[in-house]
Amino acid sequence: MAANYRILEAFNRTRYQLTGHGKRNVQVLKEAFELLEGSLDSDIYGNGNIIEDFQNRLAEILGKESAVFFPSGTMAQQIALRIWSDRKVLHKVAYHPLSHLEIHEKDGLKELHHIQPILIADKDRPVVLDDVLNLKEDISCLLLELPQREIGGQLPAYEDLEAISAYCRGKGIKLHLDGARLLEVCPYYEKSPAEICRLFDSVYISFYKGIGAIAGAILAGETSFTEESKVWKRRHGGDLISLYPYIVSADYYMDLRLPRMKQYYEDAKELAQLYNQCEAVTTRPPVPVSNMFHVHVRLPRDKMEAILVGIYEATDIGFTSHLRVVDEESCYFEVSIGDQYGCIPSDQIAHAFQQLRKEIAACQ
Amino acid sequence: MAANYRILEAFNRTRYQLTGHGKRNVQVLKEAFELLEGSLDSDIYGNGNIIEDFQNRLAEILGKESAVFFPSGTMAQQIALRIWSDRKVLHKVAYHPLSHLEIHEKDGLKELHHIQPILIADKDRPVVLDDVLNLKEDISCLLLELPQREIGGQLPAYEDLEAISAYCRGKGIKLHLDGARLLEVCPYYEKSPAEICRLFDSVYISFYKGIGAIAGAILAGETSFTEESKVWKRRHGGDLISLYPYIVSADYYMDLRLPRMKQYYEDAKELAQLYNQCEAVTTRPPVPVSNMFHVHVRLPRDKMEAILVGIYEATDIGFTSHLRVVDEESCYFEVSIGDQYGCIPSDQIAHAFQQLRKEIAACQ
Repeated sequence: MAANYRILEAFNRTRYQLTGHGKRNVQVLKEAFELLEGSLDSDIYGNGNIIEDFQNRLAEILGKESAVFFPSGTMAQQIALRIWSDRKVLHKVAYHPLSHLEIHEKDGLKELHHIQPILIADKDRPVVLDDVLNLKEDISCLLLELPQREIGGQLPAYEDLEAISAYCRGKGIKLHLDGARLLEVCPYYEKSPAEICRLFDSVYISFYKGIGAIAGAILAGETSFTEESKVWKRRHGGDLISLYPYIVSADYYMDLRLPRMKQYYEDAKELAQLYNQCEAVTTRPPVPVSNMFHVHVRLPRDKMEAILVGIYEATDIGFTSHLRVVDEESCYFEVSIGDQYGCIPSDQIAHAFQQLRKEIAACQ
Repeated sequence: MAANYRILEAFNRTRYQLTGHGKRNVQVLKEAFELLEGSLDSDIYGNGNIIEDFQNRLAEILGKESAVFFPSGTMAQQIALRIWSDRKVLHKVAYHPLSHLEIHEKDGLKELHHIQPILIADKDRPVVLDDVLNLKEDISCLLLELPQREIGGQLPAYEDLEAISAYCRGKGIKLHLDGARLLEVCPYYEKSPAEICRLFDSVYISFYKGIGAIAGAILAGETSFTEESKVWKRRHGGDLISLYPYIVSADYYMDLRLPRMKQYYEDAKELAQLYNQCEAVTTRPPVPVSNMFHVHVRLPRDKMEAILVGIYEATDIGFTSHLRVVDEESCYFEVSIGDQYGCIPSDQIAHAFQQLRKEIAACQ
């Protein structure tokens, strides 16, 4: 059995998991639709109450004039950058080297939109004002991802955001927010989504991260911008006759989990502390600023995997389903706190971490 | 009240409708999921049994090496044309002037893929061999839509298809099938989907026309082609973490309605005959070749609308929800036969048509 498969299998067999909301299965959809009347009309190509009401709800939450539902963030963000690039007649944008657009989208931005990205900031830290000040080329748009997922969900200081926003406005550079996990960082910033979004010209948020719905995204901004985005949505093949399976579930799980974001953040800080008490283990960031963080371990992946699988079987608690190699000596994994963490008896968590500390110490 | 809205409202109030499968509402999804186990795992970015099994099922039905599920036909077809254009390093394709790509996609093919379409054939008839022989420019791909929806769902003779296919193969032109309604024409051609698809290098079919599912499409062909299409699907933002809401419903309604395509076709012929017995009314084509046809009426739209609304109210039978203007003297509407036609007592249909004949005759 492949190593990676073994830890996934062992994780799936545990009674309790430290991360996530639970399995991504058909029940997620069934639950969202259970109490809904069958007679409710579908959306039709972007029209109808079911989509318009949700878009209005999100526009209000994000403090923007209007919002458009998209099947994916990949589609929404490429389109946002295209609109800003077309308006300035300048197909150059800037973002972090580990942006979703750069590493997970098979170069859609370049291949479909012929937009050239300029990568700013070091790979292992978020974008700061100096990165923007030091840009040597003119750009139409700067994209900031809050939190920066690939480096454990790190954030710039809020004052830094304000300074970047003011600078961009002065220079005629549009500021776009990759807010896939925006709702997850509001408790740390102690700001409402609308307060944060005020710093940005356009905003994307996702519904299957902290919210845990099936799929889908919102793109928000001024109406002239969102109307233009609908044309591109049609061109991309995203203007489906019916998007309600995603909209209904996004709406349902927003109601359920938006009020829990503060709790997930507190849980993340607690859990990170437990990891940081283990020898050879550090979290990134050291103190989480959202519901997510990365756990770095100075042990070869295979070794760490054997330890974890053993603990899963002995304690019935799953830490992670997947370990990634950093180098021959170390590995890491991502943690996203959801509904499951709070359901685990504290003494069982304490016991599992006791085991983890013991097993890792034995390897040093 | 706007005229168009009035007929839609009156149609929706009727007990029986001559067209379609019924309302596009949330019940369509609830029915498809009702008996499904909640524990069934979601697909994850194109992987997992729920998507792979369906893709394999469709590859087999279409007689192709493999198949990929897409959120929309718009996305699937642009990608097919892009792949064939890239392979030949020639960004020129040919299709009918009323192709979906030309009139319903906001020029996505041109704006995203920079592919130049050459429009062949007259607007009011399907593409025939001579249109292809007379092409003055080299093309990478010819797209044929079977049936040609915007002209009432007309079809070329099967021998014409075979001749076009042989010619294209000889010239190194790829032949792509816009088979949005392919399953609906098999009874007329007396061919299996696989027999028809054998003439084509790539094939798209839709699940929310005759099949009546929620949304979604399949693109099929050789594995080297479908694998490349997955890269473009990611770039377009169509590689969603979960597409199962569409897949499950497509699978469910395929089971239900694929065996009924012959019946829909027979019903369409019967209903077209009833229309053709009305003065000033002709169907296009005169004898349907699928479950669909257009009804042309030599009366101004407002006049015809008043007649129809009156008949809906008097007979409880709805003919159409929408009338389109041709010119000041005439209008038309589209008919797609689904499950509803067969549920209406014949004498009630006969009575409604008797009324229609009488009302129209009174206007002549």
